[in-house]
Amino acid sequence: MGKPTALVLPPQSRLDEVCSSECVRLLNKHFEPVWNQTGRDFTEEELAGMIGSVEVVLTSWGSPKITEQMLEKSPKLRMIGHAAGTVKGRIPSTVFAKRIKVFSAAPRIAHSVGEYCLSVLLASLRHIPAFHDEMRAGQWRASGRKGRELAGQTIGIVSASSTARAFIQLLAPFRVTIKVFDPHLSDEAAATLGVTRASLEEVMSCPIVSIHAPKLPATYRMITRELIERIPDGALFINSSRTDVLDEEALLEQLQSGRFFAALDVFSREPVHSDSPFLALNNVILTPHVAGATVEGHLSLMEEVVRDMVRCLEEETTCFEVTERMWETIA
Amino acid sequence: MGKPTALVLPPQSRLDEVCSSECVRLLNKHFEPVWNQTGRDFTEEELAGMIGSVEVVLTSWGSPKITEQMLEKSPKLRMIGHAAGTVKGRIPSTVFAKRIKVFSAAPRIAHSVGEYCLSVLLASLRHIPAFHDEMRAGQWRASGRKGRELAGQTIGIVSASSTARAFIQLLAPFRVTIKVFDPHLSDEAAATLGVTRASLEEVMSCPIVSIHAPKLPATYRMITRELIERIPDGALFINSSRTDVLDEEALLEQLQSGRFFAALDVFSREPVHSDSPFLALNNVILTPHVAGATVEGHLSLMEEVVRDMVRCLEEETTCFEVTERMWETIA
Repeated sequence: MGKPTALVLPPQSRLDEVCSSECVRLLNKHFEPVWNQTGRDFTEEELAGMIGSVEVVLTSWGSPKITEQMLEKSPKLRMIGHAAGTVKGRIPSTVFAKRIKVFSAAPRIAHSVGEYCLSVLLASLRHIPAFHDEMRAGQWRASGRKGRELAGQTIGIVSASSTARAFIQLLAPFRVTIKVFDPHLSDEAAATLGVTRASLEEVMSCPIVSIHAPKLPATYRMITRELIERIPDGALFINSSRTDVLDEEALLEQLQSGRFFAALDVFSREPVHSDSPFLALNNVILTPHVAGATVEGHLSLMEEVVRDMVRCLEEETTCFEVTERMWETIA
Repeated sequence: MGKPTALVLPPQSRLDEVCSSECVRLLNKHFEPVWNQTGRDFTEEELAGMIGSVEVVLTSWGSPKITEQMLEKSPKLRMIGHAAGTVKGRIPSTVFAKRIKVFSAAPRIAHSVGEYCLSVLLASLRHIPAFHDEMRAGQWRASGRKGRELAGQTIGIVSASSTARAFIQLLAPFRVTIKVFDPHLSDEAAATLGVTRASLEEVMSCPIVSIHAPKLPATYRMITRELIERIPDGALFINSSRTDVLDEEALLEQLQSGRFFAALDVFSREPVHSDSPFLALNNVILTPHVAGATVEGHLSLMEEVVRDMVRCLEEETTCFEVTERMWETIA
């Protein structure tokens, strides 16, 4: 049996970002790669014309969707690997019935998000942007503010998703108490993570709150106005997830009152318009939806997926596979 | 034998900052505390008039120096505890000959510095202040910059001081390679810390460099122009130590070239004047000498010292004692 043919959808410009040289080596070793030489993303029609003859498809941002009609005409297709995050909406859920294996680099992106969360958490506790701006304005400790420490604090986490787990891992040396709300988290799994399960009310009442809920019908606006009002005075609220999971209007109002601090990477309208009231807040660190975006993280996306496909071919345990059972609870 | 009398030098306003209610409880339980009721710091004369009749003195920022003459007239004095960092310059080195035990809260401050270093390290890698400023200016990813990850990086650390050790501890989950220059660090101690010993040249050539050298005659300008020129392009240089250990002029010139990034908490002239060329740099995160200053850290300073004095009285192992052997290598 020859090596499986792998159709690599991203053009060179995207590969420069998401495909390491090690990934190229792996692809050449274990597959017959077919590269996109067009200098742009394929159209859906072009993909439909090629997918019928391959065993493997590798996608990333910008790649055309894989449709049910394509699957009907792709009897050889065994694996789809997405060198990016969310696969939902990019492939039909009927892949599982056809016994096509699906892989996503979402857990790799999760590590970047975990680093982001710790980054804005520490930066906010230590007032790094505020001190920096004061210094640049020639003011030396003019505000008289003092930093806060992370060690020993209590952190509430909404949803034990992969980004939450990556964040939790980085918190280990700080001896923090971590409370997690997640209806799918068992006591045993919580104990393994070193966290305790808690109600959403309890989690939202912590002095540090970080949102990691996936965007799903079941999570739509789960963080209500009442829950946002529970955030304690002086607390820090971090959102690196989605705004769909919360009442953004209520969050804005609470932040405008100056009652607590926030670090926000996501907004209901992106790009954020220059007249957005969020931009006028002095108690918020703002970033442009970059929690999952790092040079190193992006460059390992396709490599992680391809490495996992090789594991699958060699019948080893996979780490980046998306199973039918996961389909309902992942974003 | 009654409880030892403890003269607490800081006035109430300072105690509010550095003495927790738990510390008051400990002092009342194990000592006969004599509080400063004047509402201001004692003068050297006032201290000289009181120190002769006490077993213990507790000091902090603002407290008068303890002189050799005072020690001559203090036959009962057994312990001096400094609820702050550096004790050198505040007490004469003859304390050791007189078998007076010395305690300093420096290792507690070191934890705050460790958190600061991770804070500015992550904030710099993820361009948090830059993204924040862009967002506030109504620009969405205008610069096209992308964050960097900490995981897997190599970090060079100058001096295995207590601040370095606190920082190293927080780096554990990131699986970084850590190279430490410290002539007093043995291979065994390095292995226990999970670091490797390296030359100063090697450490200064790392993509991330953090300075933790104490201010001592032996460390004066140890980081020369040549060493600063070794810092690689695109690197990050963190100084939360002192400027005396480096050629600040050379650092400024290198930073003005834009060749690498920095996070600076210390400056040769503090407060930094509004016309300082450091304030004009776009590749530097600036903070006003606050690496060791946190609400929680300060509030535990006297408590940690008192707790350690109690350990000493009960003949347990101490953690915050300054011994004669350490005198030469600590700041």
